[in-house]
Amino acid sequence: MTPIRKFEKPLGMRDSFPLINEKKEKVRDIGRQFFQSRGFDFIKTPTVEYYETIGKASAIPDSALFKLVDRQGETLVLRPDMTTPIVRVATSKLLKEQIPLRLAYFANVFRAQEHEGGRPAEFEQMGVELIGDASVYADAEMIITASEFVQKLGIKDYRLTVGHAGLLQSILIQLTQSKEQVRELLKLLVEKNLVGFEEAVKTYKLSKEDENRFIEFIGQASNVQSIQQLRPFIDETNHTQVNMFSYLSNLSALLENAGLSNMVTYDLTLTSEMSYYTGMLFEVFASGSGFAIGNGGRYDGLLQEFNSDVGATGFGLRVDRLLEVMTTSTKRESRTLIFFDEANYMNAVKDAKKLRNEGVQTTIQFLKSVEDQQAFQMNFTDVVWLIEGDANNE
Amino acid sequence: MTPIRKFEKPLGMRDSFPLINEKKEKVRDIGRQFFQSRGFDFIKTPTVEYYETIGKASAIPDSALFKLVDRQGETLVLRPDMTTPIVRVATSKLLKEQIPLRLAYFANVFRAQEHEGGRPAEFEQMGVELIGDASVYADAEMIITASEFVQKLGIKDYRLTVGHAGLLQSILIQLTQSKEQVRELLKLLVEKNLVGFEEAVKTYKLSKEDENRFIEFIGQASNVQSIQQLRPFIDETNHTQVNMFSYLSNLSALLENAGLSNMVTYDLTLTSEMSYYTGMLFEVFASGSGFAIGNGGRYDGLLQEFNSDVGATGFGLRVDRLLEVMTTSTKRESRTLIFFDEANYMNAVKDAKKLRNEGVQTTIQFLKSVEDQQAFQMNFTDVVWLIEGDANNE
Repeated sequence: MTPIRKFEKPLGMRDSFPLINEKKEKVRDIGRQFFQSRGFDFIKTPTVEYYETIGKASAIPDSALFKLVDRQGETLVLRPDMTTPIVRVATSKLLKEQIPLRLAYFANVFRAQEHEGGRPAEFEQMGVELIGDASVYADAEMIITASEFVQKLGIKDYRLTVGHAGLLQSILIQLTQSKEQVRELLKLLVEKNLVGFEEAVKTYKLSKEDENRFIEFIGQASNVQSIQQLRPFIDETNHTQVNMFSYLSNLSALLENAGLSNMVTYDLTLTSEMSYYTGMLFEVFASGSGFAIGNGGRYDGLLQEFNSDVGATGFGLRVDRLLEVMTTSTKRESRTLIFFDEANYMNAVKDAKKLRNEGVQTTIQFLKSVEDQQAFQMNFTDVVWLIEGDANNE
Repeated sequence: MTPIRKFEKPLGMRDSFPLINEKKEKVRDIGRQFFQSRGFDFIKTPTVEYYETIGKASAIPDSALFKLVDRQGETLVLRPDMTTPIVRVATSKLLKEQIPLRLAYFANVFRAQEHEGGRPAEFEQMGVELIGDASVYADAEMIITASEFVQKLGIKDYRLTVGHAGLLQSILIQLTQSKEQVRELLKLLVEKNLVGFEEAVKTYKLSKEDENRFIEFIGQASNVQSIQQLRPFIDETNHTQVNMFSYLSNLSALLENAGLSNMVTYDLTLTSEMSYYTGMLFEVFASGSGFAIGNGGRYDGLLQEFNSDVGATGFGLRVDRLLEVMTTSTKRESRTLIFFDEANYMNAVKDAKKLRNEGVQTTIQFLKSVEDQQAFQMNFTDVVWLIEGDANNE
């Protein structure tokens, strides 16, 4: 044993103490009831998957994967997301039984960290996937479900940003000279590094006209209230762009019908580190967290990697970030402590049974096992003594 | 991509489909409410821990550990049990705040498997730990809590087997000639290989008297109804044995008071692959599973490895085996499907909202996205059509 590391945890790994854990369980309870009421079935997948199957398809950089080698010499990974495992399950089994398929999950996912004090290396995600429905109604269902769930958690001050991965890609291809430039710009947009984006564009030596269109695009194609403000950035002679924009307009109408106009902004520069998104994508922000509390989108391309040509859309929410923005009470429930001595053990058992049946959390504790009785009592709202004479003198 | 492995999972890894998953969630719900009502706080620990900290202390054979190496070159393990991580948390932080400490968990643990079709490599455990109480009341609380939880789950046909790791060790040391022999015999007892045990004893060339005592011990010191039947196996001149037996007698009286006499048998040959048990230990069996559905015991020695000298006791139940022996209904709840077309989207949303508010699980589905409407409807108890004219001809 190296005593120096006796009490430590690996980089980015955390313990959840009772108060935080109980809040997580409440989010889980609400989510389970909420998503089930909307016809989603919860499934679980293994924590460990084949690198070939899940690691590569998951769109997470290799350096962020926890890799291990099994006894057969195969490389395994700790799942870095839940969408890819669910697509594995759906395409291997469930899609044969039911299309479209509505699945939900509550699971921890893993991302290796480089620095102490960085982001968590293991965190809980709650989300849903709708697989086998390519319609705009499916995408609308995702955004509306995410929005209503956030409301259900009592989070009032939140916003949804909606973009389109395919449309962004098409615009970037049109304005640049190479795939490398597209990749570079997408990477900068993932980091939301707009200054870097402009600087990169300037190094490309584009025509003055294209460069200006780019600067305009970056400045004005994000965070607009109405989808129509994005029309100037669409090339009306490009069928793909026209069709995608029309899709986004239909989606926008459905979101408006759902009463979400004030919550939604549109952003053509929105992209994701999850490179499997091919269509609509969105992020959820809330006052109290600098990061997105959730995100989602359409990922038909990922299905193709699993030899399926059906459409799929979904979203996931970060449980740790939800807790940051939720204003739940941290008050502990009332709990009763019964101290007993040898002579009163049976009385303690009897009284505890009665109290528990009445719904009172009750601990029975042999008094002599407690060194600091004063400190121990602090954890309870009520203390009952079932002690003969002066037990402290024993 | 190697297409051959596209849909596969690593050895021993399983998906949990909705019906099974929902049953697990119900066990979890019942357990959370049950253990909290008895004053246990739920905590979570990381899936990944340092090998030096948790892997070595956990008492799981090295070959059953999932090991990985982090970017800093440190060896990590997927937690093979929950007791050791909880002891890490307790000794590093919580014990400073509260002694005795009552903690509970619901977590998956990992054991690497050698063969296809073998035991699961990842499974869920639910359990509690009582840390900082060396009294017999703490041990009784564990056995009684385990028993009452099993009852709470509706499992009627179950049994508890109680033994004592320290007492067994002392008897084996007394009757053998070396530590190697003790180790060999303990290993055979872990495997419950009594034939192998007798054969091994015969190779030791003990005195005829000692050999006979051994054969008697194996034949008669297990599965007895009354603790007093075990007295003949105790060396009355050996203080350690006399004290441990007296402890076991006190425990037996508490279990009898709790009304568990008919449920409990005593077994001095009981041991565990978890070598950290030092005192009382027990297993829970139920009709319907060939394996123990749960086990527990006192593990003061493990605390010492974390530089703490307080006593600790606890137990864990295997959720997969609990499901095997539970006779819950597999009936799905009623669920409504609303098929809609373009013209009726808003009506579908409105009707779904009403139904969900009434507690009815409701799915809304754009009809044209469904290829096999007949098959899709099979998943629902009610189907509502909000369609203008004959949508199937579209």
